Amino acid sequence: MGNHYDKQKKPTHVLTVENWENDEIYALLERAQSFQTSSRSFIHEQLFAANLFFEPSTRTKISFEAAERKLGLQVLPFEANTSSIKKGETLYDTVKTLESIGVDVVVIRHSQERYFDELMDAIHIPIINGGDGCGHHPTQSFLDLLTIQQEFQTFEDVNIVIAGDISHSRVARSNIYLLERLGAKVYVAGPKEWMSEEWMARYVTMDEAVEIADVMMMLRIQHERHAVKMVAGPAEYHETYGLTVEREKRMKPTSIIMHPAPINRGVEIASELVECERSRIFKQMTNGVYVRMAVLEYVLERR
Amino acid sequence: MGNHYDKQKKPTHVLTVENWENDEIYALLERAQSFQTSSRSFIHEQLFAANLFFEPSTRTKISFEAAERKLGLQVLPFEANTSSIKKGETLYDTVKTLESIGVDVVVIRHSQERYFDELMDAIHIPIINGGDGCGHHPTQSFLDLLTIQQEFQTFEDVNIVIAGDISHSRVARSNIYLLERLGAKVYVAGPKEWMSEEWMARYVTMDEAVEIADVMMMLRIQHERHAVKMVAGPAEYHETYGLTVEREKRMKPTSIIMHPAPINRGVEIASELVECERSRIFKQMTNGVYVRMAVLEYVLERR
Amino acid sequence: MGNHYDKQKKPTHVLTVENWENDEIYALLERAQSFQTSSRSFIHEQLFAANLFFEPSTRTKISFEAAERKLGLQVLPFEANTSSIKKGETLYDTVKTLESIGVDVVVIRHSQERYFDELMDAIHIPIINGGDGCGHHPTQSFLDLLTIQQEFQTFEDVNIVIAGDISHSRVARSNIYLLERLGAKVYVAGPKEWMSEEWMARYVTMDEAVEIADVMMMLRIQHERHAVKMVAGPAEYHETYGLTVEREKRMKPTSIIMHPAPINRGVEIASELVECERSRIFKQMTNGVYVRMAVLEYVLERR
Repeated sequence: MGNHYDKQKKPTHVLTVENWENDEIYALLERAQSFQTSSRSFIHEQLFAANLFFEPSTRTKISFEAAERKLGLQVLPFEANTSSIKKGETLYDTVKTLESIGVDVVVIRHSQERYFDELMDAIHIPIINGGDGCGHHPTQSFLDLLTIQQEFQTFEDVNIVIAGDISHSRVARSNIYLLERLGAKVYVAGPKEWMSEEWMARYVTMDEAVEIADVMMMLRIQHERHAVKMVAGPAEYHETYGLTVEREKRMKPTSIIMHPAPINRGVEIASELVECERSRIFKQMTNGVYVRMAVLEYVLERR
Repeated sequence: MGNHYDKQKKPTHVLTVENWENDEIYALLERAQSFQTSSRSFIHEQLFAANLFFEPSTRTKISFEAAERKLGLQVLPFEANTSSIKKGETLYDTVKTLESIGVDVVVIRHSQERYFDELMDAIHIPIINGGDGCGHHPTQSFLDLLTIQQEFQTFEDVNIVIAGDISHSRVARSNIYLLERLGAKVYVAGPKEWMSEEWMARYVTMDEAVEIADVMMMLRIQHERHAVKMVAGPAEYHETYGLTVEREKRMKPTSIIMHPAPINRGVEIASELVECERSRIFKQMTNGVYVRMAVLEYVLERR
Repeated sequence: MGNHYDKQKKPTHVLTVENWENDEIYALLERAQSFQTSSRSFIHEQLFAANLFFEPSTRTKISFEAAERKLGLQVLPFEANTSSIKKGETLYDTVKTLESIGVDVVVIRHSQERYFDELMDAIHIPIINGGDGCGHHPTQSFLDLLTIQQEFQTFEDVNIVIAGDISHSRVARSNIYLLERLGAKVYVAGPKEWMSEEWMARYVTMDEAVEIADVMMMLRIQHERHAVKMVAGPAEYHETYGLTVEREKRMKPTSIIMHPAPINRGVEIASELVECERSRIFKQMTNGVYVRMAVLEYVLERR
C-alpha cells in the first residue's frame, strides 16, 4: 500500500479507447465475459480503490464500486462535495494525496474534458477514466461492445445505428471509431444540429434506421451537459427522433435496443419499450460490472 | 449476484406490518433477540445491500448498515443527492439499475407515501421499507415491540400510551393496530388537533397517562414533515403535552419511557429524562440493529 | 459490539496532545513506524468505527478510513449533511446513538472548539479528535513529529520554524509546546498580526528563517476558518511571508519542508517546491495513515 508501487515503472491508465488494439479489446471482453460465471481474480492482497466522481452518477459509480468489491478490493469513500476541493485544492493535489495515503487505483469522473492530461505522467497509480466532460467514457464503450458481442458473436457486418445527441455524448465518437474498426457498419440518426460534418455520410432518418438496424443504440439527451436549446419539445422530439412504439414494430426480429441510461422516458425512447423483449438496457448495466472488473484487474496486474 | 435470483419467484418484501401474523412476529422477535448474544447467521456467500435514503437519517440508515455488516453483507454506498435522481431518473429505474448491477436487497426511505406500490411487483429483489412519508416504518415498529417484550415478557394487558404527533407518525397507527392485536391496552395522548376521530375513544390527558402507563411511548414532533402550525410554543407544548420531570415522578415504579428519536429535548420530553432509570430510548437503538438483522435475514433466506 | 464495553471503565480518548508524556509519545511513534512494514495488529474481532466530519476534509477523513481498514475495522459511513443533525439533533445525542448502535470508536471533526468537553465523561466509547475549530488536531501533531523523527532520529537541537497563520492553526500551538518539550528549538515566522505576544520571543523573518531552519513547517492560510481580512494579497503575501523559489535556495543542504495541506500553491509556498527534493509534504500524508493506525490501536486496546 502506498509505498509498494515502483516509482520508476509507469502505471497503466485507461483513459480513452482509441489506443486499444483489436486483440487487446477482444481479450478484455473475454475476461469480462468470464466474470459472469466466476468472480475469481488474481488479486489476493489488500488493495485500495477510490472513486472520485465530481459529477452526479448512480450507475457508473455504484457499478465500479460493485466491481471493486467483487474483486476483493477495499473502497475508500470519497465525496467531492465534502472534500478539500471545497477549500480550493487542485485535482492534481487531491489525487497525489490519495496516492500518498496508499490508494492503489483511482476512478475519476470530471466535467473537464481531458482532465487527465495533467495527471497521467505525474501520478504513480493507475487512473481509470469514468467520464470526462463530453470526451470519453471507456468502460461504457467496452460494455456496449460486450453487449453487442454477446448477441451476435461478432461485429462483422452488424448494422448499428447510434441515435440522438451524438455531439455531446461521451461514447458516440469512440463507439463509431471502434465499431467500424471491428467490422461493424455504423449509421447515425437524430437532429442534424447535433451532427458534425464528418458524420453526415452515415446519416439516416429514424424511419430508415429502425429497418436497417441490428442494434438501435439510443443516446441520452444530456440536458445537464449542454446549454444548446433543445431542438424541439419532448413530445415533438419523441415523434421525430425517438424510438416510438410504432417504430419498434418495424425493427427486424433479431435486432436489439440499447441505451446507456439514465433514460428520459417518453423522449428518446417510449416508456413501454424500456423493458421490452429486445431491450438490452438493463443487461448493459449487468455487463458494466463485468467490464469494470476486467479493466480494474487489467491495470492492477500491470502495476 | 444479479443474475442469480430466480425471475419466476417473487421476492419477499417488508413494506408494512399489518400483514404479519402474530406467530410470524413472535418468530422475528425471537430471532432478533438471539442476535444480542451471537451474530451468526445463515449468510455465507458474498451478498450486496444498498440503502436508498431520500430523507435525512442517522439512526435508521446507520443501524441498517451495521446490521448488514454484522450479517456479513457488502454494502454499496448510495447517496441520493449525488445520484442520477438529480438527472431526473425515476425511482423505479434507479432500483432496477441496482438490481441489474447485482444488488441483492434494497432498503428505501422516501418522502412519498407508498412509494413502493410501483416497485413491489416489478422488482425481483427484496425491498425493505425504511420509512415512507407519514406511512409505515416496519423495522421501527418491530424494535418497539422487542423493547416492550424484553421488559414485560408479554404484551397481554400491558398499558401503553402513545403520546404526541400521532397523525404524522410513521409508526403510531401500525403500533396501535399491532399492540392491540397482541393483547396490549393502547391509549393515546397529545394535542387533539393531531388525533383522528377513531382514536378519540383511547384518548387520555398526559396527567392521566403517566399514572396508567406501563409504557410511555413518546413520539417526535415531525417539524420537517408537516406544515401544520405547531399547536403551541415549545415551552407551552412541554407543559401541556410533554413528559415533564414532575409527571415522570407520578409514573408507576416499573413503567418505562420510549422515544424513537431524534429527540426534541425540552419539548416532548424533559432533557433530564432522556437517560433516566426508566428510559429505554438508547436501548431501542441497540434493539434496532438486532431487529434489522432479523428482517434482512428473513427476506434473504426467502430468495 | 455495543453491549460489550464495560460501562464502569472510562474509555481512553485522544483529544489533545499536551497531556501525553514524552515516553508515551515515543512509544506511539515507534508503533506508527512499525506499521510502515507490516499492518499486523492485535485486533481480531469485528469492530466498528465511525468518522463524524462536520467540516470538509479529504486527507484526514480518508486517512483515518484507510487506517481503520488496514487494522481490519468495519467503517460505518456517516455523512453530516444527510444525518439527523439536520433535524436539530445534538452532537451528544448523535454520538450516544452511535454508541448504542454498536460503534466501538468515533473520530470527530467539528468547527466548535473543545466540542468534546460535553462528551468525554458521558460517552462510553473512545473519541479521537480529528480537529476542533482552531483548537487541536492530535493526529496531525503526531504525524508531524514522526516525519521529523524519521529525518533527524532525534528532536534535540533541531531548528524548527513554524511559518504562517499560527493563531488559527489547529496544530501550531500544540507543536510548539511538544517540540520544545522534546528538545527542539522552535521559531515562528509570518505576519505579526497572526502572532500572539507569547510567541514574539521566537519570531524570525522569513529570510532569517530559511537560513536557520532544519525544518520549515509551513502552515495553511485558513481562509475558511477566519474572517480576518488577509494581511496582504496572495502575491504580496508570497513575496513577504511565503517560501519562494529564491528562499528555498538559501536553505541548508539537509533541511526539509513540511506542510499539512491542502496547499494554497503560490501563496504560502511556491508551486514548484511542493514536490522538490526536500519536500516531505506527501510523505507526511503517508505517515498520517501509520500514526492513525497507532492511535486507533492505542484506544481500542485500552477498552
